Amino acid sequence: MSQAITPILLTPGPLTTSERTRRAMLRDWGSWDADFNQITGRIRQRVLDIVHGQGTHECVPMQGSGTFSVEAAIVTLVPRTGHVLVPNNGAYCARLARICKVLGRRLTTIDYSEAQQVSPADVDRALAADPSITHVALVHCETGAGVLNPLHEVAQVVARHGRGLIVDAMSSFGAIEIDARKTPFDAVIAASGKCLEGPPGMGFVIARRSVLEQCEGNAHSLALDLYDQWVYMQKTTQWRFTPPTHIVAALDEAMTQYIEEGGLPARGGRYARNCKALIEGMRALGLRSYLDEGLQAPIIVTFHAPVDPAYEFKAFYQEVKKRGYILYPGKLTQLETFRVGCIGHFGEAGIPGAVAAVAEALKAMGVKQVSEPEMA
Amino acid sequence: MSQAITPILLTPGPLTTSERTRRAMLRDWGSWDADFNQITGRIRQRVLDIVHGQGTHECVPMQGSGTFSVEAAIVTLVPRTGHVLVPNNGAYCARLARICKVLGRRLTTIDYSEAQQVSPADVDRALAADPSITHVALVHCETGAGVLNPLHEVAQVVARHGRGLIVDAMSSFGAIEIDARKTPFDAVIAASGKCLEGPPGMGFVIARRSVLEQCEGNAHSLALDLYDQWVYMQKTTQWRFTPPTHIVAALDEAMTQYIEEGGLPARGGRYARNCKALIEGMRALGLRSYLDEGLQAPIIVTFHAPVDPAYEFKAFYQEVKKRGYILYPGKLTQLETFRVGCIGHFGEAGIPGAVAAVAEALKAMGVKQVSEPEMA
Ligand SMILES: Cc1ncc(COP(=O)(O)O)c(C=O)c1O
Ligand SMILES: Cc1ncc(COP(=O)(O)O)c(C=O)c1O
Repeated sequence: MSQAITPILLTPGPLTTSERTRRAMLRDWGSWDADFNQITGRIRQRVLDIVHGQGTHECVPMQGSGTFSVEAAIVTLVPRTGHVLVPNNGAYCARLARICKVLGRRLTTIDYSEAQQVSPADVDRALAADPSITHVALVHCETGAGVLNPLHEVAQVVARHGRGLIVDAMSSFGAIEIDARKTPFDAVIAASGKCLEGPPGMGFVIARRSVLEQCEGNAHSLALDLYDQWVYMQKTTQWRFTPPTHIVAALDEAMTQYIEEGGLPARGGRYARNCKALIEGMRALGLRSYLDEGLQAPIIVTFHAPVDPAYEFKAFYQEVKKRGYILYPGKLTQLETFRVGCIGHFGEAGIPGAVAAVAEALKAMGVKQVSEPEMA
Repeated sequence: MSQAITPILLTPGPLTTSERTRRAMLRDWGSWDADFNQITGRIRQRVLDIVHGQGTHECVPMQGSGTFSVEAAIVTLVPRTGHVLVPNNGAYCARLARICKVLGRRLTTIDYSEAQQVSPADVDRALAADPSITHVALVHCETGAGVLNPLHEVAQVVARHGRGLIVDAMSSFGAIEIDARKTPFDAVIAASGKCLEGPPGMGFVIARRSVLEQCEGNAHSLALDLYDQWVYMQKTTQWRFTPPTHIVAALDEAMTQYIEEGGLPARGGRYARNCKALIEGMRALGLRSYLDEGLQAPIIVTFHAPVDPAYEFKAFYQEVKKRGYILYPGKLTQLETFRVGCIGHFGEAGIPGAVAAVAEALKAMGVKQVSEPEMA
C-alpha cells in the first residue's frame, strides 16, 4: 500500500483525487453536528451554482453510488402511473431503462447503436406519437462508448411537449455546461466521484423545486425517497440517515479546488486538452478511437483493441498498470475495445505518460499490428 | 479543521475512528482492479468469520448508509406476498416497520414501550396465531433507547415456527455475540461505521445462502437488489456499481485492528467497561440512566435530562462540545433525554473525560438540580 506505487486512475470514476481532497478524510465528523451540516449546505449551494439553479432548483444529496441517485430520481419523480422514454445509445441508457422496468414504471426506448448520438428529432416524433409518455430520461455523456448526447436540443423538444426531463449527467456534471436558465430539466443527476474529483460514495439530484414539491408518496422505497430526504434536510439541515461524513468532507474540499481552478470552463478545458492529447497520442501508435470526433465527449475515449493475436486485454491492463496507469475495459457489446478516461486530478504529464505506457506495454506483449491495414 | 480541536464522538456511528483507519483513505483505488477486489473479498470473509457463518451464509456488501442495507434485506428476502412481524420497542424498530410499509410488504407489529425488551413469548404467540407471517424482523440493539433485545431466544422461537428471521444488528455487530451455528437467522444486517469502527458509507447483509438463492426477482429496486449484487460479486469479484473505494479500504484496515485487538470478546469487553464507567460516573453527578440495568446494551446509554429549568439540550451540547466531546440527542418520544455512546476508538480516558466535561458543562449552565428529588 505504499504511496509510491499508487497508479494514476484513467477510469471514469473512481478517479484520481488530489492529496488535499483525500486529506480532508483524516477527520471524523458527527452527523448531527452543525459544523458538519454546514458542509452539506455548502455543497448543495455550490452544486446549484454550477447549473445556475438557485431559486428554481434544489440539490438533494443521496448516499450510495451514482446509480442510487438515478434510481432515487426515477422512483421519486416519475409517478407510479408514469411512462418513461429512454433514448438508448449505450450501457448507462440501458441501465436507466432497466431501473424503470424493475421499478414497474412503463418504459419505451428509442434504440441506437453505441456509435450514434441520440437524435432530438426522434424524441420529438416519439413524444408527438405517444401522449402517455410523461418523462424522458436522457444520459448526457454516455460513458459506455463516450458519446456526448445533445442535451440542450433534447431538453427544448421535451419542454415543447410539456413532459418532464430527467438527465443522468453522472460523467459530465461540472465539466460540460448545463445551464438551468437555458436548458429546462426536472432533474439532473451526478455524483461525488466524477468530474468534481471527489471520492465516490454519494450522489445528488438537482431537481426542479416545483416538481419535487409534488412528489410526496411516489417512491415505494424509504432509502431512495428523494422527496423525504429533501423535506427532512430542509427542516433539520441533516441527512435522514447516516451520511458518509468523510466523503462529504472530501467532496467539499474537492469543490473548493474546483472553484479555485476556475470552475466549469477551466475543468472542462483541462479535460478537453487531455482528450485531444490522448486521441492524438494513441493515433500516433496506430490506435484508433471508436467514435466520430463530433460525438466524442471529453470524458472517456473508447479505442479499438489491437487486432494482433498477441493482444489480450487482461495482460495489456497489467502491463500498463505496472507502468503506473489504470485503464478501463471496453463496454461495447459487439466490438473488442478498451477505454481511457480523461478526467481526474493528474498533471499535464498524465496523458503523455499514459500513452508512453501503452506503447511500452504493447511492445512488451509483442503486439505489432494494432489496426486493420485498410483502416489505418 | 485543525486536528487539535477534533472532538471525540460519543455518538453511535459515525463514531471516532483510529488515525490508522483514516489514513487508509489516503489512497485512490480503481474499482475494477484486482487489488481492490481482494480487499472486498477479505472484508466479506472476515465478516462471516465474526458470526461463524462460513459455508452457510454469504456476506453481501451494499453501498449507502445502514438503512440502505436494511431496506435491501427486506426488499430482497421478503417476497412481495410476504408478511413481516416487527416486535417494536423503539425508533429503529419503527423504521423497520416503515420500510415494510413503504415497500408494500404486509406488516404486523407487537408494540412495547421504549423501556421494555422484546419478549420471545409474545413472538411465539403471534406466530402461532398467524400462519401468514413469513418473516420476523428484529432489531438486536435498539439504539433508540439502548435496549438489548433477546436475539437468541427470539431466533429459537422463529426457527421452531419455520419462519424467516431478519436481524438489524447495526449497532451491535462485532461487539455482541451472534453465532450462526447456534442462533438461526436468514439475515443479519450491519454497517461499516459502528462497532467495527470504520467510517460510514457502506453496510452489509449476512444472508443464509440457501435463502438468498431463492430471492431472484423479489426486489422492485435495482440499486438495493441484494440478490443481483451477490450474483454479480460472485461472478466478477466486483461490486455492481461504483463502490465507496476509500470507505472499503478503511473498513478493511479497521477490521485488521479489530482482529489485532482480540476480536469480538475484546471489542465487546472494552465497550462494556466504557458503559459501566459511564453509568457510574454520571450517577455520581446525579444523572440517572433511563433503562433497567438488565436491558442495557453496552452500546449507547440514554440519560434523563436534568430537571433544572436552566437545562436546555442545545446549550448543553455546545458546552460539552467545547470541552471536546460530541453527545447525541435523545430519541424517546415522551421523555426529555440525551444519549452518550460507548463505542468508538478512544482511549480509557475517554469516558472519565466525557463525564468531567458533562459536570463542567452543567456547572457552566447553572444547572443545579439534575434529578427529581424522590428518585435521586
Ligand atoms: C453516465 C453514467 N451513469 C451512471 C453511472 C453509474 O454510477 P455508479 O457506478 O456510481 O453507480 C455512471 C458511472 O460511471 C455513468 O458514467
Ligand atoms: C439499530 C440501527 N438500525 C439502523 C440504523 C440506521 O443506520 P444508518 O443511519 O446508517 O442508515 C442504526 C443507526 O444508528 C441503528 O442503530
